[in-house]
Amino acid sequence: MKKILIACSAAFVLPVAAHAAQLEGKQSSADIIAASTKEDWKALDPENTLYIELEKRRVVIALSPSLAPKHVANIKKLARAGFYNGLTFYRVIDGFVAQGGDALETRSKELPTLAAEFETATPKEFSFYEMKDRDGYAPRVGFIDGLPIGYDPKTRGAWHLHCPGALAMARGDEPDTAKGEFYISLQQTRYLDRNMTVLGRVVAGMEHVQSLRRVAPPEKPEDDLGEKIIMVRVAADVPEAERTNLEMLSTDSPAFDAYVESRRNRPEPFFVYRPGFVDICQLSVPVRPVSAE
Amino acid sequence: MKKILIACSAAFVLPVAAHAAQLEGKQSSADIIAASTKEDWKALDPENTLYIELEKRRVVIALSPSLAPKHVANIKKLARAGFYNGLTFYRVIDGFVAQGGDALETRSKELPTLAAEFETATPKEFSFYEMKDRDGYAPRVGFIDGLPIGYDPKTRGAWHLHCPGALAMARGDEPDTAKGEFYISLQQTRYLDRNMTVLGRVVAGMEHVQSLRRVAPPEKPEDDLGEKIIMVRVAADVPEAERTNLEMLSTDSPAFDAYVESRRNRPEPFFVYRPGFVDICQLSVPVRPVSAE
Repeated sequence: MKKILIACSAAFVLPVAAHAAQLEGKQSSADIIAASTKEDWKALDPENTLYIELEKRRVVIALSPSLAPKHVANIKKLARAGFYNGLTFYRVIDGFVAQGGDALETRSKELPTLAAEFETATPKEFSFYEMKDRDGYAPRVGFIDGLPIGYDPKTRGAWHLHCPGALAMARGDEPDTAKGEFYISLQQTRYLDRNMTVLGRVVAGMEHVQSLRRVAPPEKPEDDLGEKIIMVRVAADVPEAERTNLEMLSTDSPAFDAYVESRRNRPEPFFVYRPGFVDICQLSVPVRPVSAE
Repeated sequence: MKKILIACSAAFVLPVAAHAAQLEGKQSSADIIAASTKEDWKALDPENTLYIELEKRRVVIALSPSLAPKHVANIKKLARAGFYNGLTFYRVIDGFVAQGGDALETRSKELPTLAAEFETATPKEFSFYEMKDRDGYAPRVGFIDGLPIGYDPKTRGAWHLHCPGALAMARGDEPDTAKGEFYISLQQTRYLDRNMTVLGRVVAGMEHVQSLRRVAPPEKPEDDLGEKIIMVRVAADVPEAERTNLEMLSTDSPAFDAYVESRRNRPEPFFVYRPGFVDICQLSVPVRPVSAE
């Protein structure tokens, strides 16, 4: 560690690297998406898709039954029982989280606590799309089912990452104390990895989460309880005409592999500096409306 | 790279590491802030602080005259000439940027173009608060004047990072083409480092930037031009009673060093997994109102 001695008063600008055309033989991510085929895309599974319905806005979440099966079963059960309907986003801290649920514990007292699924043991044949880029928080990182994961080859444990849009369950001081309160990460909060159970990720409507009124947890009913959650639903329970039908670029497709490389090297002529590196949370998996065919 | 073979159907939960009290001999960041003295904090310099005034909301930006002196001089000049008053945030893409300025180029045509300050050469005696944590995008990372930087010991070049809240100038395809259009990063967009000139960072009011109406760049005056910028001002030009008087924990103070360590190791009993690592963009520099004394 060094301390600031001086600011650089005699600053001058380093010359910009020469650049001209697109990197030879390299495709841009736009090229790759344009050239992708229907088989490269995978529609969201309605049984594992959650809608958080706000006033005139919908947040769409892809759930992860692979790594957080009990938490996914639990939130679907709560959604189907109408638990969240009329509750609020009562703790919204900019750059950190938007937490929703039962602020004053009027309904959640009776709920059972959940055993943590911070890290899930995987079978020997477990395989995932592995990033070659180093990560400071996990020995290995990659994707399964379109969602970012960390992986430790020593323990064969896998877990979802606190990238922006991660859906996770809040808890008390002890690990196995989650009930119905959930949060959505507004920024990368990777230090929470393996400390909380992440069970999904926002794939559409994140702008509505980012725009929620910032509010501190209330202490009494007269306090500002935050913006209302009209309801939380499992997509499979919603009439087909009212669903948001989306598909993600399959993280299992050759197109995805090319896409990752295009984000790592940025071949477009605009770039004068190409990092040759991509942080997994800064690699968004492309999502689009299901094309009518 | 491996492909998905199976999802882990036989998933079970790995045992949570034993934990109990706070890590011995380690202070939490809350402890460190509480124990800090007045000398550990540094008030924002009104001459290098920018206010973006939205309808009833203010965004406060700390500028960096050290690494982007010409861009800072330019934006202050534009602000003082009233250039931004009545313009809009006309390109707001969730998870990416909020871009503001003269959408239809009604005023900016006459402006001169700016030579890029992507990376600034520093003198031999240049010193900064250097993070010991690895970074995928830069050989070294750290802070000067409270703002995150990258540093390359080979070239002695330094540059500010595209962390959330970074203020940078937009440009055309060629490097030296920035004029008056600016953007604020809504998430980490580190691949833009050294491709754009970053000249400051939002230190208060980032929730207002995150809540801006999402809008694509307009093509004609009838299109949605986005939310209005009432005015952009240099804090020094604002009557003292109307200023937002803030101080940052000095990145040059012993308290900051302890703070970084507390974020790297998370000694609080809540944490069952302690990463021993902190990503520079996930390390927010504490900011608070200047205490009346």
